[in-house]
Amino acid sequence: MPEFLELKPPLDALDAILQRLPPLFERQVEVVATENALGRVLAEPVLAREPLPSFARSTVDGYAVRATDTFGASESLPAYLEWLGEAPMGKTPLQALGRGQCVSIHTGGMLPEGADAIVMIEYTQMVQEAEVEILRAVAIGENVLKTGEDVAVGQLVIQAGASLRPAEIGGLMALGLTHVQVFARPSVGILSSGDELVSPDISIQPGQVRDINSYSLSALVEQIGGLPKRYGIAPDELQTLKESAQKALDENDCLVITAGSSASVRDLTAEVIQGLGEPGVLVHGVNVRPGKPTILAVCDGKPVIGLPGNTVSAYVIANLFVAPLIRKLSGQTNFFWEQKINGILTVNLASSSGREDWVPVNIIRDEHSKNCLIEPIFYKSNLIFSIIKAEGFIRIPPDITGYSANSEVEVVIF
Amino acid sequence: MPEFLELKPPLDALDAILQRLPPLFERQVEVVATENALGRVLAEPVLAREPLPSFARSTVDGYAVRATDTFGASESLPAYLEWLGEAPMGKTPLQALGRGQCVSIHTGGMLPEGADAIVMIEYTQMVQEAEVEILRAVAIGENVLKTGEDVAVGQLVIQAGASLRPAEIGGLMALGLTHVQVFARPSVGILSSGDELVSPDISIQPGQVRDINSYSLSALVEQIGGLPKRYGIAPDELQTLKESAQKALDENDCLVITAGSSASVRDLTAEVIQGLGEPGVLVHGVNVRPGKPTILAVCDGKPVIGLPGNTVSAYVIANLFVAPLIRKLSGQTNFFWEQKINGILTVNLASSSGREDWVPVNIIRDEHSKNCLIEPIFYKSNLIFSIIKAEGFIRIPPDITGYSANSEVEVVIF
Repeated sequence: MPEFLELKPPLDALDAILQRLPPLFERQVEVVATENALGRVLAEPVLAREPLPSFARSTVDGYAVRATDTFGASESLPAYLEWLGEAPMGKTPLQALGRGQCVSIHTGGMLPEGADAIVMIEYTQMVQEAEVEILRAVAIGENVLKTGEDVAVGQLVIQAGASLRPAEIGGLMALGLTHVQVFARPSVGILSSGDELVSPDISIQPGQVRDINSYSLSALVEQIGGLPKRYGIAPDELQTLKESAQKALDENDCLVITAGSSASVRDLTAEVIQGLGEPGVLVHGVNVRPGKPTILAVCDGKPVIGLPGNTVSAYVIANLFVAPLIRKLSGQTNFFWEQKINGILTVNLASSSGREDWVPVNIIRDEHSKNCLIEPIFYKSNLIFSIIKAEGFIRIPPDITGYSANSEVEVVIF
Repeated sequence: MPEFLELKPPLDALDAILQRLPPLFERQVEVVATENALGRVLAEPVLAREPLPSFARSTVDGYAVRATDTFGASESLPAYLEWLGEAPMGKTPLQALGRGQCVSIHTGGMLPEGADAIVMIEYTQMVQEAEVEILRAVAIGENVLKTGEDVAVGQLVIQAGASLRPAEIGGLMALGLTHVQVFARPSVGILSSGDELVSPDISIQPGQVRDINSYSLSALVEQIGGLPKRYGIAPDELQTLKESAQKALDENDCLVITAGSSASVRDLTAEVIQGLGEPGVLVHGVNVRPGKPTILAVCDGKPVIGLPGNTVSAYVIANLFVAPLIRKLSGQTNFFWEQKINGILTVNLASSSGREDWVPVNIIRDEHSKNCLIEPIFYKSNLIFSIIKAEGFIRIPPDITGYSANSEVEVVIF
């Protein structure tokens, strides 16, 4: 299984692994309190079990009337209505409205029986103890929110696969749905390998480097809604690495190995992954820079990814492959990067034709022209702080040799 | 303190409250483990205490050499070097390199003493037991990452006020910084008022509506990095509301009251807020739709916000005022909405001149032209599900009477 015999384009490579995952309906679901469901993914469509609003409500402060009683009313020729009192908030108004009568009503208040419109308070005047002057006519339904006008009974209000944002949390509460069925968060085992790696809390000796990939990867998994679980640093030795990988895969929904950076270690990782289950390695080497030595596999129904050891490569590949996979495992229907910004490239940007390039960039917002200027960050391999300076990445497709200065480019924000 | 005597533009209103907050250095800080610091805001600048990398490393697989020994080497006239063995990963190579010698080295390996460049394995050939043929010359420093090339000792690597993303978590770990000083998460007390409101878990009676604003607001606070704490529903009665508000303010860094929707209740809220501390209400009524009846106050150094009861208004105002305030209290240096998308408006969109309008919209991505089409959502007041359908909002400034179809507009993603 030598790498790089055939380099797959990134999207084809991602597709190869997505196609082999078990269908969504086999994913585990759980019921959670809606108030704790921010960012969770709905496992079932939500249908309204009651109408919203559940009663006809006033949208203004004013007087509930029969619209016909205001017919022709104007400032020069007002209508005069008998005032019955105030419609209470949060209760059914006891008194039904007869012809020629009105009641005071607040925004959000329930219309009394017989009323079919509201005159805004600005167009009224209390003339004496129990008489109101109406200075403008209203049509039936004016300033009224009808029962079920927001949502009808049985209406599909939120689709399965939707991520719950603050607005959806509010919408579920509005319907009295205090609990929802969501997909279980996918757990992601993370295993590092590399004889040069040490834990970040240990003071390093010459030749050693701290394991940073498994921590930035954990944070990414957390950010996307997965549950990261780190399995430490395994030595570059077949049997030990195999045992650690098998344990991490058995205990999780997905496994990511951040391999050592040398070619021999990468081959070792591929051999280990191949032994974890069927069908095994699907992609060994992706036609992208940075990140060529990527391994994508499905082992007995679970995705396994071998990330390059190089920090920048690992970061890009984690966003290109691990993030969509976790979104897919989470039940999200849209699992590609969503956030994109268009801007004007400041310099010429060359790329080797035949390979997809991902170039880190800064985004400079020009408040005057409202345009964004896109400034590439040129970096040497393996510099974590070049990534920290980046606000996004430009994708240069394989069939293009680059972009020229002042052209409009699209920036993906990971 | 009647409302709406003078309606402030939203940005002026926000500024009025931001100006009155105590300075950042008075905010509480805490030390957290870097691995748990995703999304937290740095309270101190991070300076590198050691160089990165901490030793000269190879960026390729190949042979560590003295560059001068390869001078003039080519495929037709190779240089021949004595092979001393392999540089181990994670350790100091024991053997120093003399003139005419080389050692095998892996990507990320430490250069032996005496070596100053790496020849990629592709341009070499092991000719016999201990001799390597070099087919291409290298310059000093070629394929080498020098000590401190990523980060020099004492260099500012992350600024105070930065939110920690996965890349920063990795960068901190790379420097061995397993703990960081961050600003304490601001706690936000949330109090609902309105005689018509009931808790979402109770089956509603005619005239009653469920309290949804305090739940979507809690989720928003959580999303932004604050700690929401709900204080239930207070009746529309001065003394009780005042006591509940005082308690919620005392126990938190910030208070939001989601007021009932009627004018009388809004006045009550303003009166309560005015009594909570100095200077009290700064803004009563904002020149924006939706959300006019907004109250902004600072009471004894803490921000207090009275949100409109209308769901759509509450949602927009929470994003316009509460979100930036929480970001500011979190110590973030950039507390305005960040995410913007430009697109082409599909229809004419009118707005009353003299007032700022925020119009909910859908964003339709045209994969072909790479353009976004922006489609306004027309809604009636108080419909939570119109907000759920929205992916963003267009801001129409007060000095403009709207945008015409096919013009380019900017969409803010809350």
